[in-house]
Amino acid sequence: MSLVLTARLGARHDRLRDSFADLGIEALVVGHPANLRYLTNHVGSAGLAVVTGDAVVLLVDFRYLTSVEMLQASPAACPGLDVRQVPGSYDAALAECLQSLGVRTVGFESAHVSVARHAAWERACRERGLALDFVASDRAVERLRVIKDDEEIGRLRAAAAGLTPVAEAAFAAVRPGVAEKEVAGVIEAALRAGGFERPAFDTIVASGPNSALPHYRAGERRLGEGDLVVLDFGGVLDGYCSDLTRTVSVGAPSSDALRVHAAVLAAQRAAIDAVRPGVLASLVDAAARQVLDAKGLGEAFGHGTGHGLGLDVHEDPRVARVTADSPSVLLEAGMVLTVEPGAYLAGWGGVRIEDDLLVTPTGYETLTSVPRELRNCGFR
Amino acid sequence: MSLVLTARLGARHDRLRDSFADLGIEALVVGHPANLRYLTNHVGSAGLAVVTGDAVVLLVDFRYLTSVEMLQASPAACPGLDVRQVPGSYDAALAECLQSLGVRTVGFESAHVSVARHAAWERACRERGLALDFVASDRAVERLRVIKDDEEIGRLRAAAAGLTPVAEAAFAAVRPGVAEKEVAGVIEAALRAGGFERPAFDTIVASGPNSALPHYRAGERRLGEGDLVVLDFGGVLDGYCSDLTRTVSVGAPSSDALRVHAAVLAAQRAAIDAVRPGVLASLVDAAARQVLDAKGLGEAFGHGTGHGLGLDVHEDPRVARVTADSPSVLLEAGMVLTVEPGAYLAGWGGVRIEDDLLVTPTGYETLTSVPRELRNCGFR
Repeated sequence: MSLVLTARLGARHDRLRDSFADLGIEALVVGHPANLRYLTNHVGSAGLAVVTGDAVVLLVDFRYLTSVEMLQASPAACPGLDVRQVPGSYDAALAECLQSLGVRTVGFESAHVSVARHAAWERACRERGLALDFVASDRAVERLRVIKDDEEIGRLRAAAAGLTPVAEAAFAAVRPGVAEKEVAGVIEAALRAGGFERPAFDTIVASGPNSALPHYRAGERRLGEGDLVVLDFGGVLDGYCSDLTRTVSVGAPSSDALRVHAAVLAAQRAAIDAVRPGVLASLVDAAARQVLDAKGLGEAFGHGTGHGLGLDVHEDPRVARVTADSPSVLLEAGMVLTVEPGAYLAGWGGVRIEDDLLVTPTGYETLTSVPRELRNCGFR
Repeated sequence: MSLVLTARLGARHDRLRDSFADLGIEALVVGHPANLRYLTNHVGSAGLAVVTGDAVVLLVDFRYLTSVEMLQASPAACPGLDVRQVPGSYDAALAECLQSLGVRTVGFESAHVSVARHAAWERACRERGLALDFVASDRAVERLRVIKDDEEIGRLRAAAAGLTPVAEAAFAAVRPGVAEKEVAGVIEAALRAGGFERPAFDTIVASGPNSALPHYRAGERRLGEGDLVVLDFGGVLDGYCSDLTRTVSVGAPSSDALRVHAAVLAAQRAAIDAVRPGVLASLVDAAARQVLDAKGLGEAFGHGTGHGLGLDVHEDPRVARVTADSPSVLLEAGMVLTVEPGAYLAGWGGVRIEDDLLVTPTGYETLTSVPRELRNCGFR
């Protein structure tokens, strides 16, 4: 695993601290794994960082202590990190840490902290006679993460490019009689063989009527001639995610399959063509939706057009309709996102086509590079 | 995917409702995926169920509507299920649903609902002029899930037994020069080949000094002669999880490796021997700890001895020390748990040995069946 060098982490801390005044906080508690890694290089399912104006404290339990010590002895050491072992509960350790830092207004990730955990933190503070305010300070780190730096772009480019041989292996595995699960197994073996750490999410192999279920995974169903098969997979390389969908036909596609595939492809083309700095992400979504509406498939496209990619497989920016809860954002150079319209017809089947794009100063760069046509698999 | 039959789901609803009076609630909102599946057979990353004294409402968005309709037309239909499509935000849909049900005191899973989500629910209720109390009602469903029924035991037995060929494949892959990641790839391919839906967690292949890191995953490091290698993996079969750890030696083990392995094996033996109904789970933990303490390895064993297994890979009962936050529970027949002591010596390496056990009316049944001796791999 290659990690980010010390100087770059220091710059991230500085940018985060620059936001503290606007957020009205003296310190931020960070526990979401991707945010924790982004700020400290610590990789694990546990750990809490407390960032103040001049300190970064990392609370970790026994299981991670040695790996953090190894990290701190490496060129990827987190600058100025104060590592404290958590002997018992993280709640008590956090309260003790906040008390030692003398902070009174503490931001936290309210979308990543459960109601029960938050109550336990407040209880632990009360038990120490510590009066402080926890302030919901969501997206403080996510806002930094949305614009990728050169090193991150290099990793995302590699993670996306690495899906080409995986797609080839998947296409070769699609044939009549093979079970969806077996195709998923081939994909995941190819991900490992390609050097990926792990799948970025549960691999989807949805055949025939299952292809009409946008979040189906992979089951016992055996592929049959004439099936459409949605193949949606991705891998994590050096911590960064890639995500690709292709829809293939088992044998010669029907005229309906060709028509729906062509419509989704045209929708994806329109959405991709809309990608450039200064454009609202919702406009990219609208571009895809407009094409599918015009082909009578608007109702069949029930999800958003895409999402950001990075340390998390679903992150900002959201490429979807504007809602009351989710205003849209302007695309900026350095964002990385998926464009993945689809059309799903219950009982018949579905089509989804997905690529990963980097927003460049003048437009976009497509990071994935697998042909998009409706491929005839299994009958050569 | 085989699902639980309708009658069994109905019995679960009845048992859940029986707890409402004690909890002081009229309804419970359930969103944790394993709990949702346990009550409704709905499998997905989204969806909210609202269970009242006489109704079960399932809120799902477009992506899952067809799969829920297919479920409801099958012998695994959830009895009395009222399916409602969520057109926009789940928050608004939940408020509308609670209003239509006329409930005023509503339990929710405070350990699974974020502070931000809870605030959005309260806001959505206020916007509809709906005055109700959300009451933290944690573990209401988990308490039911901790005792497995015959069907669940059958699946857990199959998921555990299915790890034997996977372990054989892993042992065969361990040899000098092979990278940890490659061994992990072999394990995951064997899981798929064995019919598992997916790995139950990120596969761990920790070699040499990495074996001293209890939560290391699998990296680029290549195995060398004399390394200890911790292999920790599991699979999900029909929704249920299995989890196994073996530690092997690349070539002939050193006398230190033999000594530490024997100590951990003795600790595991002592812990397993303590498993029977009526015994505190913390006593099982203490049995392992006592053996390692006596061998001077108490400090090297920094995690709990085990955890429950079921729809989640980590669930009740917790087999660990009693703490202020976590009182221990009495073991009961029908519980399924792991027993996995370890010893980790920074810079040198570590050993962990883990099996899955069913608590029976008279003692226990070991569900996993892979030899536990310190195997010499790669030099035949």
